Amino acid sequence: MKPVRASPVHLKIKPIAINTFRENVLILSRDCHALRPERLKGSRKVEITRGSERLLATVIIAEDPLLVAPDEVGLTQPAFRRLGAPAGALANVASAPPPSATSAIFDKIRGDTLTPAQLTDVVHDLVDHRWSDMEIAAFLVACASFMTADETLALTDAMARAGKRLQWDNRLVVDKHCIGGVPGNRTSLIVAPIVAAHGLLFPKTSSRAITSPSGTADTMEVLARVDLDEQEMRAVVEECGGCVVWGGRVDLSPADDVLISVERPLSIDTPDQMVASILSKKLAAGSTSLIIDVPVGPTAKVRDTRAALRLRKLFEFVGSRLGLHIDVIMTDGSQPIGRGIGPALEMRDVLAVLRSASDAPPELTDKAVKLSGRLLELDPEVRGGQGEARARELLGSGAALKKMEQIAEAQGPSPISNAIGSLVHEVAAKKDGWIDGVDCLRIARIARLAGAPTDPGAGIDILKRKGDNVRAGEPLYRIHGVERADFDYAASAADAESGFHLT
Amino acid sequence: MKPVRASPVHLKIKPIAINTFRENVLILSRDCHALRPERLKGSRKVEITRGSERLLATVIIAEDPLLVAPDEVGLTQPAFRRLGAPAGALANVASAPPPSATSAIFDKIRGDTLTPAQLTDVVHDLVDHRWSDMEIAAFLVACASFMTADETLALTDAMARAGKRLQWDNRLVVDKHCIGGVPGNRTSLIVAPIVAAHGLLFPKTSSRAITSPSGTADTMEVLARVDLDEQEMRAVVEECGGCVVWGGRVDLSPADDVLISVERPLSIDTPDQMVASILSKKLAAGSTSLIIDVPVGPTAKVRDTRAALRLRKLFEFVGSRLGLHIDVIMTDGSQPIGRGIGPALEMRDVLAVLRSASDAPPELTDKAVKLSGRLLELDPEVRGGQGEARARELLGSGAALKKMEQIAEAQGPSPISNAIGSLVHEVAAKKDGWIDGVDCLRIARIARLAGAPTDPGAGIDILKRKGDNVRAGEPLYRIHGVERADFDYAASAADAESGFHLT
Repeated sequence: MKPVRASPVHLKIKPIAINTFRENVLILSRDCHALRPERLKGSRKVEITRGSERLLATVIIAEDPLLVAPDEVGLTQPAFRRLGAPAGALANVASAPPPSATSAIFDKIRGDTLTPAQLTDVVHDLVDHRWSDMEIAAFLVACASFMTADETLALTDAMARAGKRLQWDNRLVVDKHCIGGVPGNRTSLIVAPIVAAHGLLFPKTSSRAITSPSGTADTMEVLARVDLDEQEMRAVVEECGGCVVWGGRVDLSPADDVLISVERPLSIDTPDQMVASILSKKLAAGSTSLIIDVPVGPTAKVRDTRAALRLRKLFEFVGSRLGLHIDVIMTDGSQPIGRGIGPALEMRDVLAVLRSASDAPPELTDKAVKLSGRLLELDPEVRGGQGEARARELLGSGAALKKMEQIAEAQGPSPISNAIGSLVHEVAAKKDGWIDGVDCLRIARIARLAGAPTDPGAGIDILKRKGDNVRAGEPLYRIHGVERADFDYAASAADAESGFHLT
Repeated sequence: MKPVRASPVHLKIKPIAINTFRENVLILSRDCHALRPERLKGSRKVEITRGSERLLATVIIAEDPLLVAPDEVGLTQPAFRRLGAPAGALANVASAPPPSATSAIFDKIRGDTLTPAQLTDVVHDLVDHRWSDMEIAAFLVACASFMTADETLALTDAMARAGKRLQWDNRLVVDKHCIGGVPGNRTSLIVAPIVAAHGLLFPKTSSRAITSPSGTADTMEVLARVDLDEQEMRAVVEECGGCVVWGGRVDLSPADDVLISVERPLSIDTPDQMVASILSKKLAAGSTSLIIDVPVGPTAKVRDTRAALRLRKLFEFVGSRLGLHIDVIMTDGSQPIGRGIGPALEMRDVLAVLRSASDAPPELTDKAVKLSGRLLELDPEVRGGQGEARARELLGSGAALKKMEQIAEAQGPSPISNAIGSLVHEVAAKKDGWIDGVDCLRIARIARLAGAPTDPGAGIDILKRKGDNVRAGEPLYRIHGVERADFDYAASAADAESGFHLT
């Protein structure tokens, strides 16, 4: 059927100093006669074109002609920036049907599987910001009810192709990723310098915290600048053989960023979306071999071995079809790894491990060595079974620390403070007992409430671990804060429910 | 787990002359230090409280302090109206977790069924406008993948209870509803005066067009005022025994209006949502007996008898549990019913039937008589099988016409024109042939494109029906238009693809 649409009208562009985050939003006057906004009520979706630029946007209505006059179209950010036309220029505005790829939503709702071509169209629409948040939510939930492995494969492939794609000369480009959910656990910042010190290429792009108290990029930022663009990142990798930067300026798998902006507020975290998200980023980053850390525990993202196995198979299936060697490692997700939770506290632990300090958390060292060992054995020169020993050697000799210092210097000085928050509250055991469980979600929430990662010095310092015996009144962990109001909230939340379970 | 949230801050209310339709939207300054908007990125959801009033809203960011200053909170419409506080007053603003009822979304995604208590919480959140469009979309799509009959029952019940509930003294309160999808088909406007003329109570609230060229309320508005509030509606029903008003001012099942505002742009139209939507409105309107017209045809909402049967069972199950007697009638949905499509053209047909005019479309008369007959037989005084004869008697005697005139006068004079659009284009057959199908969707779209229902005189006048033989060049239908640009678009769309299939 031919598309049926109303005729466009010419309106003067007026930038409006409102930022609508990811979504394109236009403001039309209540009296914009030619467009008759009341007719848009069914869809609220319009297309604005100026020369060869074309945006789909959601409409809201100005009730005051001083804000937007009847012959004007108000462009909020980011729509104004994306259209790229000057204020006062004329643009065509027409009501628009939903983008054709949204039919994929209805196909999924009906229980159909989507073809690679359909999924490619969806990804292009997402990258061009043609879908509203509502449409993205509908697509994600429809996919959550079921997705075949082939669909996940096609989605991953389309996402990886839709942005920039880094190329490296090396035959072996390694990376390490954790699916998250366990506070602390900052192994990437130890694995990176070990592996790079050995001589394997480790060009790591990492994320900032979304719902956690710190992302790898947030913690690294305590030591060095992380918001490098592609050229700056390349220079660091060429000099050091590795880096740990924030991926946000490198434009890898931009469709993933769009999907995450909706998954996050809806807490959608299905295996399929996780695989497509992680692998599309790694493929775009030019990785050839990837270790994936899947913590398994009652309050981790993956709750049992069966779910972990299913996830592993999906990672392996998609990875093998797209030429990415994948090694999925299931790890202990029953409690935080390391002592510090929050950027500055985590960096303190990372440096303690790299310095082989006596107070380095042993489980953080052990886990980083284990993961590094698996990567090092990808080097034909390293004998099977010798990876961990080589990793310990690079740690013990100070080679890893030196590599980290080199990377940090190459990335540039940190723009933030490394001071640990001076407001301190100790959360005490309410009774004598044996710690039989730690709620990762609760600990993460309290650390975040204390101000992490916005205040790099805020967070939690864990003093006791699962299996320890404690006496009533003995401290379980310390909360560190920077802002008084946040700190007080975190302290009272922790006193009400600490997240430590004693029997 | 106890909720964990940031501390509230006091900001001055500033009304912003922007209308965001249904959703509550607040504007905070980029420099609103106390709230640190960058920390909201994860959720963008805040709670604003002033006295006992409390709203959940989505945040957008002002980049210009002249628009919203750091110590202000900008309230767009409808949020400003809903909070009900004056400009300049102080309100508390705090970041807010998603409303607890949104956990129902995740439960549905996981494949759980929801309890009546959960569904009641969802409905209360919807009525209080606590959910974003994104959350509503996620809920609807999660429900679309499967819903049990018990869930549909509980949702319907909760929706019916969540708004106003009309009470009538009569033991028997009848209504008639069509699930839609077939252009024209304006039987309610004929059934209402027939049934009311007989003496059954028929207090009809109807809807305006959403995606169709006219709703019952749009067509009635050509004859009389329809935007009556509850008191005005009661007065008309007391005087006339019936009415045909727009339901929008009567506040029946307000949760339904919220759901529809998201279902509509996403084209979500599942049997479960349809049953909950229709029956919650009818229960709230105080109906005791309801006839539901389910047109079945290849381009209607229901495509085959099996789907129609499943829908009938669901209507009957929910209706019987909630004390509403339901009679589902499957009708021919293979082509438009009546000749006119669009408010003025449809009202022309309705009046022709009520006047027993020689040019009254016979299939419209027959269908209205059939439906009226089923309702009339609910009267113990009418013998089984005599309903249709009684309906024809009321039509033929002029009693139904007189009743319609009485209702129209009681509702008040129409605020719009009843003139049929003077721009006319005839859409001709491109070859000789026999009409073996009419695409209802295409016809509806062309009529809407011509301007219906915004221009009441715009629409389509059907000249040929399924089964007719036509010669090349012979007109199939006429397009009527009011606005030249819309009319031209409709005409060219129709010439490209008429919606009539000839063999």
